[in-house]
Amino acid sequence: MTGETGLTPLHRLMADDLEQVNATIVQRMQSDVPLIPQLAGHIVAAGGKRLRPLLTLATARMCGHTGSRHIGLAASVEFIHTATLLHDDVVDESQLRRGLDTANSLWGNQASVLVGDFLFSRAFQLMVADGSLDVLRILSDASAVIAEGEVNQLLTANDTETDEGDYLDVITAKTAALFAAAARVGAVVAERPRAEEKALERFGRGLGIAFQLVDDVLDYSAEAEKLGKRVGDDFREGKITLPVVHAFARGDERERAFWRRCLEELDQREGDMAHAMELLHRHGALDAGIARAESYARDAREAISGFADGPIKDALLEALRFSTARAY
Amino acid sequence: MTGETGLTPLHRLMADDLEQVNATIVQRMQSDVPLIPQLAGHIVAAGGKRLRPLLTLATARMCGHTGSRHIGLAASVEFIHTATLLHDDVVDESQLRRGLDTANSLWGNQASVLVGDFLFSRAFQLMVADGSLDVLRILSDASAVIAEGEVNQLLTANDTETDEGDYLDVITAKTAALFAAAARVGAVVAERPRAEEKALERFGRGLGIAFQLVDDVLDYSAEAEKLGKRVGDDFREGKITLPVVHAFARGDERERAFWRRCLEELDQREGDMAHAMELLHRHGALDAGIARAESYARDAREAISGFADGPIKDALLEALRFSTARAY
Repeated sequence: MTGETGLTPLHRLMADDLEQVNATIVQRMQSDVPLIPQLAGHIVAAGGKRLRPLLTLATARMCGHTGSRHIGLAASVEFIHTATLLHDDVVDESQLRRGLDTANSLWGNQASVLVGDFLFSRAFQLMVADGSLDVLRILSDASAVIAEGEVNQLLTANDTETDEGDYLDVITAKTAALFAAAARVGAVVAERPRAEEKALERFGRGLGIAFQLVDDVLDYSAEAEKLGKRVGDDFREGKITLPVVHAFARGDERERAFWRRCLEELDQREGDMAHAMELLHRHGALDAGIARAESYARDAREAISGFADGPIKDALLEALRFSTARAY
Repeated sequence: MTGETGLTPLHRLMADDLEQVNATIVQRMQSDVPLIPQLAGHIVAAGGKRLRPLLTLATARMCGHTGSRHIGLAASVEFIHTATLLHDDVVDESQLRRGLDTANSLWGNQASVLVGDFLFSRAFQLMVADGSLDVLRILSDASAVIAEGEVNQLLTANDTETDEGDYLDVITAKTAALFAAAARVGAVVAERPRAEEKALERFGRGLGIAFQLVDDVLDYSAEAEKLGKRVGDDFREGKITLPVVHAFARGDERERAFWRRCLEELDQREGDMAHAMELLHRHGALDAGIARAESYARDAREAISGFADGPIKDALLEALRFSTARAY
């Protein structure tokens, strides 16, 4: 062991594969219409952790795949993710993503919608080039579930009556479905039995939910700034996440009136954010979110317990540990 | 012959198949998220001519297909079309489509973007259920081309320097690519040789271009109102279509200044529309558009000359004749 933590072991082990994925992404986002690679390049470069394609790469290798089919499919997964980010930012009217101007703020909503459609089509072209109907089924199913989750989120937005079940439904669909599909695809390309596909799907789902739960906690946590996030975005937009659901359920009438004013009516005043933090701490809402994340992470760990030990499995388990540990 | 004209013979011959397609569409647009079937139902019901799925149905039957694979694939084609309409209306900020409120004007841009994504995913799920990688390739390629065409149209919008080649590129991509793919799929499900696939693709492309060219002419024609269209929408939005390209190219400096003011700067005044019509007539721009459409229709007719004669082929040829004849 090198003592590396977080996503570092995964990135190091998959560095060569990931470089090929990045090359495929750049190659397949080309078009005779110059705005397409320009806009797509902006969001792909802003790119973040590449966690979803890394899952496909790592699970394929862990399952013994020695070819290169996982490269194109990992790029396909990233294209689906990128398309949803472009459409998300239009839907949320976001101006910033990871500290950079969003594509919609630079090129307009229209171009973001259409380039998202283009990348989504490219994702399917990459799957077709690979030729596995199983992979096409897994990723088209995931895409439909993601879109359903996004519509569902639109309907629960600013609704303080959202309960924990509703919230978990939304993040399972909009975030975890692609993690689950990305991980499962690794077993498909390695031609492993269906039970291993399902085990990796469960691993991906648990990891995805844990990541999203902790992201939502970090939005109310001083730790967030260390990770380069802006604290309070969800609060300002009136997003209903688990910490709020928890505190609202346990709050008295006066507290509920406060949440309704801030998150439903979006009538926010000086000191409201500080008061929200105080309420969340009073009801242990952040700890509750982390505890929930840890339970999904445990389920994910359990899901891959049957795979032989080795450096890639260790790296996946470390990524899993990091998904909740980064909350502290 | 019954003396039926237009799309009637095609609709009559394919009535049973089309009913199954409509049932499939209704069934596959369901979701646990009630807004999805609500919004999708609105645009599917507003539905129009179902020309694209009819192409898949008719070409499959003409090629001798006796099974029911063409049903799900025709529904898939219509889902792709519907998804692009939803996104188009967001991009164009349209309030009306075929005289009805658009989905975006009723439920907002956000829901239209996301339900479009959902229908697009459903289209791929239907193709996966059919199981033909050839069909998946044809329709994912078409989807990418459509998105490219839409972005391209965004860039040429309000640009009076657009030439005929640019305009034809846009409509070939954004309209004719799906007609071409829809027709080609018929040969694939009937397992006909590649040459027949290509012939039907060429037929669909020619038909699609002819339809779009005549649609663009009708936007400046008194005939349009008989067909339930609103005259002058393209002019008001500053869309650059073939009639304008033609008149601009042949106009003097004063006329060009007029087109620039109206279509680039969107500075439109009382009497401008009438003056535009006068300029289009002076330069024979509408006739030029129709002549161009007729040349594409001839190419489409030529493309299927090798198929055995029969009622379905006759109906396709009548649809083709109608694509340009409705201009008069």
